[in-house]
This record gives sequence, structure tokens and C-alpha cells, in this order.
Amino acid sequence: MAETLRVGIAGLGTVGASVVRVLKEKEAELTRQCGRSITVTAVAARDKNRDRGIDLSGVEWFDDARALAASGKIDVFVELIGGANGVAREAVEAALHAGHHVVTANKALLSQQGLALAEIAEEKGVLLNYEAAVAGGIPIIKTMRESLAGNTINRVFGILNGTANYILTRMEQEKLSFEDCLADAQRLGYAEADPTFDIEGNDTAHKLSILTSLAFGTQISPDDIYLEGISNITQADIQAASELGYRIKLLGVAVRTESGIEQRVHPTMVPTASVIAQVHGVTNAVTVETDILGELLLSGPGAGGNATASAVIGDIADIAKSRPGFQHGPVFGRPARELTPYQRARMRSHEGGYFIRLTVDDRLGVFAAIATRMADNRISLESIVQHASNHAGEGQKTIILVTHETTEAAVRKAVEDITADGHLTDKPQVIRIERAA
Amino acid sequence: MAETLRVGIAGLGTVGASVVRVLKEKEAELTRQCGRSITVTAVAARDKNRDRGIDLSGVEWFDDARALAASGKIDVFVELIGGANGVAREAVEAALHAGHHVVTANKALLSQQGLALAEIAEEKGVLLNYEAAVAGGIPIIKTMRESLAGNTINRVFGILNGTANYILTRMEQEKLSFEDCLADAQRLGYAEADPTFDIEGNDTAHKLSILTSLAFGTQISPDDIYLEGISNITQADIQAASELGYRIKLLGVAVRTESGIEQRVHPTMVPTASVIAQVHGVTNAVTVETDILGELLLSGPGAGGNATASAVIGDIADIAKSRPGFQHGPVFGRPARELTPYQRARMRSHEGGYFIRLTVDDRLGVFAAIATRMADNRISLESIVQHASNHAGEGQKTIILVTHETTEAAVRKAVEDITADGHLTDKPQVIRIERAA
Repeated sequence: MAETLRVGIAGLGTVGASVVRVLKEKEAELTRQCGRSITVTAVAARDKNRDRGIDLSGVEWFDDARALAASGKIDVFVELIGGANGVAREAVEAALHAGHHVVTANKALLSQQGLALAEIAEEKGVLLNYEAAVAGGIPIIKTMRESLAGNTINRVFGILNGTANYILTRMEQEKLSFEDCLADAQRLGYAEADPTFDIEGNDTAHKLSILTSLAFGTQISPDDIYLEGISNITQADIQAASELGYRIKLLGVAVRTESGIEQRVHPTMVPTASVIAQVHGVTNAVTVETDILGELLLSGPGAGGNATASAVIGDIADIAKSRPGFQHGPVFGRPARELTPYQRARMRSHEGGYFIRLTVDDRLGVFAAIATRMADNRISLESIVQHASNHAGEGQKTIILVTHETTEAAVRKAVEDITADGHLTDKPQVIRIERAA
Repeated sequence: MAETLRVGIAGLGTVGASVVRVLKEKEAELTRQCGRSITVTAVAARDKNRDRGIDLSGVEWFDDARALAASGKIDVFVELIGGANGVAREAVEAALHAGHHVVTANKALLSQQGLALAEIAEEKGVLLNYEAAVAGGIPIIKTMRESLAGNTINRVFGILNGTANYILTRMEQEKLSFEDCLADAQRLGYAEADPTFDIEGNDTAHKLSILTSLAFGTQISPDDIYLEGISNITQADIQAASELGYRIKLLGVAVRTESGIEQRVHPTMVPTASVIAQVHGVTNAVTVETDILGELLLSGPGAGGNATASAVIGDIADIAKSRPGFQHGPVFGRPARELTPYQRARMRSHEGGYFIRLTVDDRLGVFAAIATRMADNRISLESIVQHASNHAGEGQKTIILVTHETTEAAVRKAVEDITADGHLTDKPQVIRIERAA
């Protein structure tokens, strides 16, 4: 049997403590699976005296994660500190330069520095594994990096943020407002005091940027993504969607188009009967659409100490099964130096179906005027619902349009025209529709 | 760059031809991903002159798959012949003994001979990959063998047969009889002329037996599985299920219990709002439930030349990324010699909820008599529906009972008692309910 794999862990929050505990509890089983034992030999964290409910006897303590990373006493450096810069980045760089494998759950670090880190890892011939960085315990990185070899990916999309999905699920199931659901999510610890990052889509965008690189062999561009959050989604939208056979999800979507790659995060209508529409609460899901395989969906826990630890341990086990001299597959599926620049498709050229909700004066001719504007912009309609909904005020009514495939530019122009006509009594709502099996 | 990986393919049906075509078409991309090129250098099939729409120039032809398997001119032997014995088995054994890696899509071979083959592969230090053998293009083998390291699996279940799921989907969506749907499936090529293997659950059982071994570290026991097919499912069942918030799927289920492992294949009620309930038509899905991660579901194409080829190519690419001297993870997750004997839990001790549909004489007191028999057997009821359904004949009515968690033994006894009481005018229907998120 090969020598023990020596693991150093930096960051002992919920995930780190869970990794330490599981590696100990499942030691015999992991040894059987990997053909060698895995031992946590060193850790680094801020407070040495805090009780984390784990046994650290015999484990070397480092106050500085960077010193642990560069130490000769480990084979794998596990980074669970967080943040795109500062200690996390410096420690990961130090570990790679020292020739250590690295496992990280840090999506911010990867989306900002992934390319540079991948170059170092590939030059040094070590593994940089990051299954936990996207969709928690769901093995989407391994699937895209390994299982889908030979497949050309045309689209990848998913529910990548548990907080946003929790809020949308409760809004739908309990007919509550966005504000009430957010407050509840904060009370239950599913949402931060400042929830912007989750509900405005930034977190989803970080994760999506990593999937995009894996899918299309492009350099990661986390800041060049179309972004729209869920804070303006109302009960009126959710109920109208439901009547028309749709459910609203915050999706991250990356699609290969003729003019480049669309990367977008926005509230999205998916068919109620689709698999992804049943992904509720804090659960995550990712769908990959390829030329050979077709549509593959993975769903499971997207966050939480244990689910994240599961992905981290899977990554460590892969390293334990490897041996010196093993040539590893590239970090982002293709060699980092061969990743092509990301060419962004213009959002205005996005093609798809649209849901449009308009609140208008209940006057003769308004409906005809709207229909005319849609026709002017060559938008063909799949369904039109007009009713005196209780969401519209007195003397007003709601008109809901679902379009056939059209372009973002046409829809924006039509809505501008309708707004200019002066019929609207409230802000128009436009939600994109995404095909899903 | 390392030397080309030389691939020999035995069996050039739909899958084999697709593998040859994709390896050629995606050669440059696969080389980028694997760090070496992958070339089909030899093939074996029955008819050399058949037009398969693929270019075999420069590829050595073998009439005998066993000769190809033992040839010194290949590094990987891909077995796409099929069958648990005969040429497929002999060729795979020959390849392993010759020190070649093996990729196979052959579920029958693995479920019958997997243990013996794994022992040879592990002794020889070569890979035996079989992603395509279970659930087609869905990467469930890699997920269970690699990603879930450190997780203790408590339950694995799934829709593993596209033909059966296609029939159940059409029965539900179009209110057709089992017989009509089967005839259609045969016309469309989704079902064989003799459909027994698919609709009676044998195919599902083969696949389940492989997942059970991976899940629980036990030896494969394909012939020791409780089996019940879908041929006795009627519109009455499907509609009653729907009224009560359930959908009927043919599931393969393996669960760890106190008295051993339950392996069972049967029509199953799953909640209509669950993710797996939305898996329609020929699509497959597998759910794995673990102590650390929780519930993970994968869904995608379960059959077809391209989907299967995708899994085969993923397996070949993994071998291309490995290098001589690399110590591979064991074939079934744990070393073959350490797999424990499969201890079967008795079906009578199965615990769960049950759906029971009874057709009875429409007489005073019958309902009370049935309720009493359920109480006698200590079965508590979640819901009771009694209606003069159009599925029951004149002067008869249908009673549907949904039980809380109880045992198979209690349910069988209660149904026996009710039958003995003489109230039933038709065969009673009993369908197990499975929890699913």
C-alpha cells in the first residue's frame, strides 16, 4: 500500500470541521476505496481555542494558512478560507508553487483567479480540484471535466443559489411576498443580513462563470455576465406563470450562439412539468445540453457544511487515488494556456420566448393597441391572457403575453413603444422563458 | 505528450459505430482534454462488408473479438458485443489477462461475472470501466465510485429502463391501456418483439445489482432480487394515483435495512411533486441517498447509440488521462476481494407506505369490514377514497386505501383476510410507495 496522504486544512468553519470529522470517521472505508490512508496532519485557523466539536490531537496547528500551504509536511492543501484575494489566494499560490495538490471550495477565488492558478497547477503537474465551488455537493465539475469528454456542450444552465430558490419556492407555495420570504430566510440563516449577493444574482454569476469555462473552453469572465435579480418578482408574476404552465426560477444560463457566448443570470420561466421546475427550496440543479449525450440534469444539496464537505472529500479521494508521475487532466477541462478568450454575445440578440405582464387602464382599444405594437415588432404570440386580476388596481387590468421565439431587441422595442403610448399604469414586467425537459 | 492510446472495439452496432465516429470527429478536442491522442486501431465485428456509415480505412479488422482482445496492438479493449457469456466474456477476460484496460457497456456480463472480472483487473492493475452499463449516458458509476467517497449510502433507486418508463408515461398522459402502449413502443422500436425482459423488470434488476454493489460494498447478486413488472398496471391505478398526488414508475430500489439489503424492482408510487416523477418517456434517473451529502439525483438519456457512446468515450478518456504506474481505484469502489456477501432482507419485512385498490360488491357493511381488517393488522390509513368509478363494473365500487408506514407482511395478511371475507369482485392491487424529494 502507498504512503498515507497528508492533508492540511486551512479554515475550520462548518465545512472544515465537517471535513476533519468525516475523514476521521470514515478512515477505514476511505482507505479501502483509495488504496491508501488519508490523514489530516495540519490545520490553520484563526482561533486555536474555539471548540469545534472535533478532535485535533496530534494535528499540527498553524496560525498562518500560507505557512501551512508551503509546509513540507503535507501533500494536499485544502483551502476553506474564502475570498477572491488576500490569504486564500496567497495560500493557494504558495501550495501550488510548493508542488502540493490543492482542493478548494472557493468560487470567488476560482472565478477571479482561476486561470492563473490553473496555469501554475498544470505547470507543476499537480491537481487543483474544486467540486465544492459550484452547486455544493452536486458532482457537476467532475461530470463536465471527465464524463462528458467528447461531447460538445451547447448550453448549461441551473439553479445555483439556494437562497434565491428558497425565496421563490416559498413565494409560490405560500403566496407570500418577496419581502416576507426574504425576512424569513434571514431569520432561518439561509440569507445574509445583506442579501444582495444572493438575490441579485452575483453568486450565481460566479458559479456560472466556472461552468461556462468548462463548457466552452473559454477563459473565465465573471464580470461580463448579464445580471438581473429576483427582487422585483411579485405574486402577480408567480400566479400568472402558474396559470400558463410555468414556474419562475433564478437561473444561470450559458449558451453558445453564432455571435459568441451568452452568459446570463435572471428570473426565468421554466415549464411546470419540467424536471428543473420541481427543484425546490435550497436544492440546486444543473442541466448540461450536449451534441452526443443530449440533456443531463444533476440535482442535490447546493450548500451546507456536510454537502460541501462531501464534495471536498471526493476531491481529496481522487488525489489519494493518483500517484506521483500521474499526468492529470487539465483544471478547466482544456489546458489553461489553450483556453480561448470569452467572446460575449450581445444580450439584445438573445433569442427565446418571453413572458410580458402589463398593467393597463381598463379602456376600450388598449388591448388592440398593444397587440398592434407586438405585430409592428414582428413578435408572434403564443398566448394572451387578459383579466381583471386582483393584483391590478381599480379601473385597471392585467394583460399577460407569452411570445413565441423572438429577440430581446424586439421585445425591448415593443415594450418601449407600448410604454410611450401611455397605456401602462405600472412598470412592465418582462421574464425570459427557457426550454427545459 | 504521451503516446497515442490505441483502442480496439469489438461490436460495431449502433453504439460501436457511434464511438468510432465521435472519436474521429472530436479527435483534436479529446487530445486537448486528455493530453494524448486516442485512435481506434482495430475493430472486430461479424460482417466486414456491412455499410455502417463510418470510415474504417487504416483500421485493422479482426473476425474474432477474442483475437482482438489479446492483440498486442491495442491498449484498451472496448466490448460492445453483449451477453453474459460466450464471446463477450471470453474476450474481456482475454483483454484483462493481456494487461489491457477494458471498457464495456454490458450490464448482463457485469451483473453475472463482474466480481471475477474485477478481481482480474485489480490483480493486473488495469481499469475496467462500465459507465454505459447502467442508465446509459448518466454518469452514475463515476459519481458513486469517485464523487461519493466518504459517504455512506443508505438507499439508491431509479428509473433504469426506458421502455417501461415510456409505456407508463404514455398510459398516464394519453389514458391508453398497457397493451396499446406496449404495441406502440414495439412499433417505434422502443420495445423488443419479446418485451418480457424490459416490462417484467429483469433489465432493471441487472442494472440495480451493479448499483447495489457500488452502494453497499457487497458482491453482486442479480438473481436474488424481488421482481414485479408493470404488465398488471391499469388505468384505474394510474388515475387513482393521480387523484391522490402520486405517479407510478417502475423503480429499482436498494436499501440498507437492519436485517440486510432490500433489492427490489416493482411499480412504485412516487409523489407527483417529486423530481423523479417528472422523468418521462425513455429518460432514466437515479437517486442516491447518503449520510453526508443527502439526496442526489441524476437524470438523462438512458439508452440510444449516442448516449451510450458518450459514456463509453468518457470511460476511454479516463484511461487516456491515466499513465502506466497509476494505481487505479477498485472496479466496484472497494477491492473485489473485500466485497462482502450480499445478505438479502426479507421482502415481508419491508417497511413503507402502500397503495391498495380493491374492487368490491356495492353492499352495506363492506367498507366497514375492510376498515376492520386493516385495523386488525395494525395498519393505519393516511387516506381512503371510495367512489363508484367507471373502472368498476355495475353494482361494484372501488375502494382505494393509502397506508401510513407499515410492513409488507401486515399488508399481505390484511389483503388475504379481505379476500377470504369474499367481498372482492376483482384481483386486489397493491403498489408500494417510495419517499422521494
